[in-house]
Amino acid sequence: MSRDAERAVVLLSGGLDSTTTLAIARAEGYLCHGLTVDYGQRHRAELASARAVADAFGVEDYKLLRLDLDRIGGSALTDPAIAVPEAPGEGIPVTYVPARNTVLLGLALAYAEVIEARDLFIGVNALDYSGYPDCRPEFIRAFEALARLATKAGVEGARLRIHTPLIALSKSEIIQAGARLGVDYGLTVSCYQADDTGRACGRCDACRFRSEGFAAAGIPDPTRYR
Amino acid sequence: MSRDAERAVVLLSGGLDSTTTLAIARAEGYLCHGLTVDYGQRHRAELASARAVADAFGVEDYKLLRLDLDRIGGSALTDPAIAVPEAPGEGIPVTYVPARNTVLLGLALAYAEVIEARDLFIGVNALDYSGYPDCRPEFIRAFEALARLATKAGVEGARLRIHTPLIALSKSEIIQAGARLGVDYGLTVSCYQADDTGRACGRCDACRFRSEGFAAAGIPDPTRYR
Repeated sequence: MSRDAERAVVLLSGGLDSTTTLAIARAEGYLCHGLTVDYGQRHRAELASARAVADAFGVEDYKLLRLDLDRIGGSALTDPAIAVPEAPGEGIPVTYVPARNTVLLGLALAYAEVIEARDLFIGVNALDYSGYPDCRPEFIRAFEALARLATKAGVEGARLRIHTPLIALSKSEIIQAGARLGVDYGLTVSCYQADDTGRACGRCDACRFRSEGFAAAGIPDPTRYR
Repeated sequence: MSRDAERAVVLLSGGLDSTTTLAIARAEGYLCHGLTVDYGQRHRAELASARAVADAFGVEDYKLLRLDLDRIGGSALTDPAIAVPEAPGEGIPVTYVPARNTVLLGLALAYAEVIEARDLFIGVNALDYSGYPDCRPEFIRAFEALARLATKAGVEGARLRIHTPLIALSKSEIIQAGARLGVDYGLTVSCYQADDTGRACGRCDACRFRSEGFAAAGIPDPTRYR
């Protein structure tokens, strides 16, 4: 199989980072398969955005899985009783969803195994980010080690790889990279409490990182605020 | 917190192994929280069994999560178009569900983080088993390493542990251990293609390991066959 025919699974949230990650994976020549997980997140608009992004990029295939992680709760993103903070705080914020990236990468790994993809892409970023433990490089390396032990492909010697092209980029560098690749950020929703039409609050962590990123990149911010 | 007040999350499938694992976790003094995942498995009867087991043991709490892994397929357990083999074969069988234990442990980790449990129990077994990669000790150790990096608890220094009390036991040893702890195996369903009332086929891998285990243990087999 030639390099440009390799399949990849790209986790898509509908946000700015995962959309840029998809643009990079496609630019690197992968046949991209999008995966979105409806885990009961508060910001439902991002699910529509994820599909719009997948459609805009013409992915090979796209899957939306449903998982009622809101039955476990423990996060402002999955428990309506916990408010989304509108000012920066200390430590790991309440928007952290317990073990989310472990579950998302596990599902991406399942999908990859079925379509015989060896490459997984996730748009984690450890610079302009909220301090979530499962966005750090050491977490990603540990998942990669796990993936090779967890799967039939790994047992058979495949070198499964977790690609994190954004991990060391600032938000403005991410936006600049996406803009060069023709990403329409108007399709994306970052806000943790976007309304049903995708309009952002302008006050949560995700909105703050996003708007500062566009300003620093010198690129017009297409975000619709309510 | 005293040792006997420690919380644990126990993955329950409704089968013989996870039920014995719950019995062991309870005997070790943990406050057990049961977690079952309806991942679109063919053998729906095991979901009713899992709840019956949780009720019989009086777990502290019990959660059933739904995840449509059947949209990914790739296994005889999640794709009705792939038949369950009724004779032993070579290599990893088609009943292997891609990345299942990675996903299940990821969900158990999420639940553990929310209830502040540090101990997860899973009834994997690497002796009388079907050769699934994600039942091996090296997979479990890799997940434990991941868990400590993936979570808020891990970042704060908690030593999350994945307990696999059955991993080196034969099926007959598992049954003997459970019988000593008073497990009613009549509540459990192991068959990969049990009918809606839990009656077993008597021919699949899971039925074969189970019936041979009861015979070797010298304990009457309560399995209902159709």
